[in-house]
Amino acid sequence: MINVAIVGYGNLGHGVRTSVERNPDMELVAIFTRRPAQVQEEVRGTPVLDSQEDVATTDVQIDVVILCGGSKEDTPVQGPLFIRRFNTVDSFDTHADIPDYFNRMDDVAREFGNVAVISAGWDPGIFSLERVIGDAFLPVSKGYTFWGSGVSQGHSDAARKVSGVVDARQYTIPLESAIEQVREGTTPGFSKREMHKRVVYVIAEDDSEQDRIRREIAEMPNYFAEYDTEVIFITGEEMQRDHAAYPHGGFVLTSGQTGKDNRQILEYKCQLESNPEFTGSILVACARAAFRLKQSGQKGAFTMLDIPPALLSQHSGDVLRSSFM
Amino acid sequence: MINVAIVGYGNLGHGVRTSVERNPDMELVAIFTRRPAQVQEEVRGTPVLDSQEDVATTDVQIDVVILCGGSKEDTPVQGPLFIRRFNTVDSFDTHADIPDYFNRMDDVAREFGNVAVISAGWDPGIFSLERVIGDAFLPVSKGYTFWGSGVSQGHSDAARKVSGVVDARQYTIPLESAIEQVREGTTPGFSKREMHKRVVYVIAEDDSEQDRIRREIAEMPNYFAEYDTEVIFITGEEMQRDHAAYPHGGFVLTSGQTGKDNRQILEYKCQLESNPEFTGSILVACARAAFRLKQSGQKGAFTMLDIPPALLSQHSGDVLRSSFM
Repeated sequence: MINVAIVGYGNLGHGVRTSVERNPDMELVAIFTRRPAQVQEEVRGTPVLDSQEDVATTDVQIDVVILCGGSKEDTPVQGPLFIRRFNTVDSFDTHADIPDYFNRMDDVAREFGNVAVISAGWDPGIFSLERVIGDAFLPVSKGYTFWGSGVSQGHSDAARKVSGVVDARQYTIPLESAIEQVREGTTPGFSKREMHKRVVYVIAEDDSEQDRIRREIAEMPNYFAEYDTEVIFITGEEMQRDHAAYPHGGFVLTSGQTGKDNRQILEYKCQLESNPEFTGSILVACARAAFRLKQSGQKGAFTMLDIPPALLSQHSGDVLRSSFM
Repeated sequence: MINVAIVGYGNLGHGVRTSVERNPDMELVAIFTRRPAQVQEEVRGTPVLDSQEDVATTDVQIDVVILCGGSKEDTPVQGPLFIRRFNTVDSFDTHADIPDYFNRMDDVAREFGNVAVISAGWDPGIFSLERVIGDAFLPVSKGYTFWGSGVSQGHSDAARKVSGVVDARQYTIPLESAIEQVREGTTPGFSKREMHKRVVYVIAEDDSEQDRIRREIAEMPNYFAEYDTEVIFITGEEMQRDHAAYPHGGFVLTSGQTGKDNRQILEYKCQLESNPEFTGSILVACARAAFRLKQSGQKGAFTMLDIPPALLSQHSGDVLRSSFM
């Protein structure tokens, strides 16, 4: 059994817990949180520890901790801290900062002899992997990533900051016409507006302000101005009823040429009814890989690009070769 | 530069050659063939060696040989022979024999200190990889592989053996309705007939025999009897004009559940205008990985499941982390 601990018990932490339960070789042995009393109420049976006080001292036998906090404030602090005692897996997803974060984690992980799998999940994560193998197999090619349909937390937060907005949920929607062009073998250079549109569901404090709110959201630079953005006003009841789930998904397409002019198109697609549960599932598979890498004497930071895929699987090499090849 | 040699200069060997030309870090330094004089005519500039006589004695500096012969007669003999002197990559695709072949190659590769990447390509190969990661990320799931639309060499050969058939080309066609059912989140248990149909283009010696030929093909056990098979008679001219290319493709779908009942669907798809050129491209990326594995002190047999994806790429880890994650 691989003993797993969760750090941070929000949406993603819950996703990791349900995933551990579905993997027969893994066991959840602890949850680290900033609100231990409250979490202990919810998860009887599993030891709940204080993420700010118990890291250095706990005597629970932990093979891998899975960091489930945010990429802005939590992971950059918790990663370098937990890696001193444990192997770690995280879903650090600030794309521009991944090289720096990798180097920081690599240094500490090597110093303390542990394995850190960073930036795991679907993007960064599987989508990164698909972009890399697409480019490796088709070096003369163009790659495209489309996201959605699904909820973007960052864009929902941005819309929520407009004055008069009580709550907002933003869906990123890939344009089917753009995907079809790539599937048909053309390799267009799309603008942002040509790849995705944005739909924002908003509860307004005062419905007479709808026009102003709509305009302020649609014109917000970096988040909405570069896209066709639709703002739809709804009630709190509708928000609760229709927008409580976190679906997401996306596409990675690689369109390349081989030989004289033979077109080869690779497409990876995921349709997710629950983004945090799927991300949690991937983190759990990566925890298995982290454990095995450590067992085989490795140390340092790894992304999903550095992990032999077989290490993610609960099955042995023999089973994989006879049943999955 | 990574020095690559090709063994066997048919369709796949040609695909490998054009792919090596598109990878700036690779160079084709030799071709081994059973008909050296003939091949030397075609490829001036590249040394052409006799695959039955020169293996043990050539002094061409070769890092990796790519075996491009058939899985039935060539690779099982050439693999264990070439691995004694060189790292190898092959596309051995007799699925049921992969475990045995892996063990044989692993033994010899370890004895001689080389790296053998076996059963690379798209299926076995990328499709195996997608089946494994689908199962690893969604342990409660069902996996589906659809092939086509594309030419199956084995089925074309089988049809050609019917008496009165001058030439035949068989297309495997996945049933869109079946794929749609999986995409919609159901997890049916399909019969073979419910997943694929087969279309065979045939040149008959004598057109008055069409009914008999059609019946003999459609009723052939293992190849056609389990499928809806359509036989279409064409002329030699039409065969030449419409069926000279080797398109192929396929789908790997994993449909799983997380949490209580959230459905997560992963789909990998390739659409190939030239099957041998794409397979060749993959073998070349695997040659890069074989070279790097050997450089890092490893030896033995590997499948694509055992290779960290970053090793397939011409880009450094730094570039991958900053531009592909």
